[in-house]
Amino acid sequence: MLELISEHACFGGSQRFYRHQSAATGLPMRFSVFLPAEAAPGKLPALFYLAGLTCNEETFMMKGGAQRVAAREGMVLVAPDTSPRDAGVAGEADAWDFGVGAGFYVDATEEPWSKNYRMYSYILELRDLLVAELPLDAARIGIFGHSMGGHGALVLALRNPGLFRSVSAFAPIAAPSRCPWGEKAFSGYLGADESSWRAYDASALMSQANAPFPNGILIDQGLADKFLGDQLYPEAFEAACRHAGQPLELRRHAGYDHGYYFISTFIEDHLNFHSASLGA
Amino acid sequence: MLELISEHACFGGSQRFYRHQSAATGLPMRFSVFLPAEAAPGKLPALFYLAGLTCNEETFMMKGGAQRVAAREGMVLVAPDTSPRDAGVAGEADAWDFGVGAGFYVDATEEPWSKNYRMYSYILELRDLLVAELPLDAARIGIFGHSMGGHGALVLALRNPGLFRSVSAFAPIAAPSRCPWGEKAFSGYLGADESSWRAYDASALMSQANAPFPNGILIDQGLADKFLGDQLYPEAFEAACRHAGQPLELRRHAGYDHGYYFISTFIEDHLNFHSASLGA
Repeated sequence: MLELISEHACFGGSQRFYRHQSAATGLPMRFSVFLPAEAAPGKLPALFYLAGLTCNEETFMMKGGAQRVAAREGMVLVAPDTSPRDAGVAGEADAWDFGVGAGFYVDATEEPWSKNYRMYSYILELRDLLVAELPLDAARIGIFGHSMGGHGALVLALRNPGLFRSVSAFAPIAAPSRCPWGEKAFSGYLGADESSWRAYDASALMSQANAPFPNGILIDQGLADKFLGDQLYPEAFEAACRHAGQPLELRRHAGYDHGYYFISTFIEDHLNFHSASLGA
Repeated sequence: MLELISEHACFGGSQRFYRHQSAATGLPMRFSVFLPAEAAPGKLPALFYLAGLTCNEETFMMKGGAQRVAAREGMVLVAPDTSPRDAGVAGEADAWDFGVGAGFYVDATEEPWSKNYRMYSYILELRDLLVAELPLDAARIGIFGHSMGGHGALVLALRNPGLFRSVSAFAPIAAPSRCPWGEKAFSGYLGADESSWRAYDASALMSQANAPFPNGILIDQGLADKFLGDQLYPEAFEAACRHAGQPLELRRHAGYDHGYYFISTFIEDHLNFHSASLGA
């Protein structure tokens, strides 16, 4: 059951904020949806955007500049929150890179996180829910994201290529098992056994895949991104794609950093990529 | 002297945040600038954006979606802050519609505001400063804004049509002398003598003007704007324009509210309007 919190006219369509009770997290969750004006009744292609550390369900809709393009392409946009809120875990909001705002799109197995911090399953739950409740065409759903959300998008797509038919990312954490953000998150949510981490590591998953996205994967990376050297490792994902025979367009942009001025610059390319891949 | 706080690549140009010591307010002030990539060395047309209540110099650049169009049109964008900060006036940050974040683009004459709350003079100071320090063409500068900033843009332009050659607004406070926001601000900053208010009331100014903008004025107003009935009075400005022979395009948009989902939808029209008016 979806509770509509607010609605705003936007580019001829409707920018909405919803709340619902999630089975996956056991908590109320918020998300946002942009619904373009429908040229005709029917199911629309849709694009899920997973946001990065400290963000919430509003960030992308407010800063990304995507609605203009989605309205033109007739695509639905969906932006979930980045973690459960108010799970009641002691200290959950103390760090900006773990806990609240930093769910890392994994299903935690370690106490005390395993009860609510199940964002991997939550994204799949939300997909099913929106296919049932809103005019989304289940056969034409793509996913993308930024930083932690780029990691999430790649992992969700690689593990569920039948559910997410196209995937792209902005500055993704592309090999989280080997970077400080990923090591902290995976240790905390999944425990010390690193073999459990592989299911949430896009580069590890790709190295064992068989070109699941024949239309290619698009990744944009700014070369002035201060996290590029220590946290992101796009070259590891690039190598895994080469090994897997997966077409990848990894674009490196001189001067661009990690923020939404970077994302908004290239957002139209991503929506066009998904629109073409999904036959929007 | 401009102090560059941060810089972000954006749509091939540069999104910058600056600080400087203002003579008008007697305090350090912050503002943002978008500089498009220059096709050739030379002075560029520029557009000042005045933001609304509670906003700061970042709001428009982050939420407006204007850089894409400014990059294409080769225009500079400038967004000042909405008030002095840390003036040391007791209680200055207690209200969201007066004091900090709510300078109303007037030069206060009442104590204790008159020392620092001089945003009308500040905008003129900033214009001069940027013409001197950045590649702005002094003959091709326009101004626009939202809500309180729409009021500010109309007033600045009507009183200085030689300095701001084109003007437009989103949901401006068009007759502040007669609305609660304006009455509170003008009473507090200017005092009880309402004759002093007329110099900051766009509808009053226009009623005495002589079609200062022959290329017209563009105003967009959402009809689902919850402030439309009590605070904005676009019809008063419309009547004043008719009286003055001033061409006005006042567009009323069904369903749109007062926020940046509204602004971003129509931002391209405004930049195109200014670009055409300024011969960008």
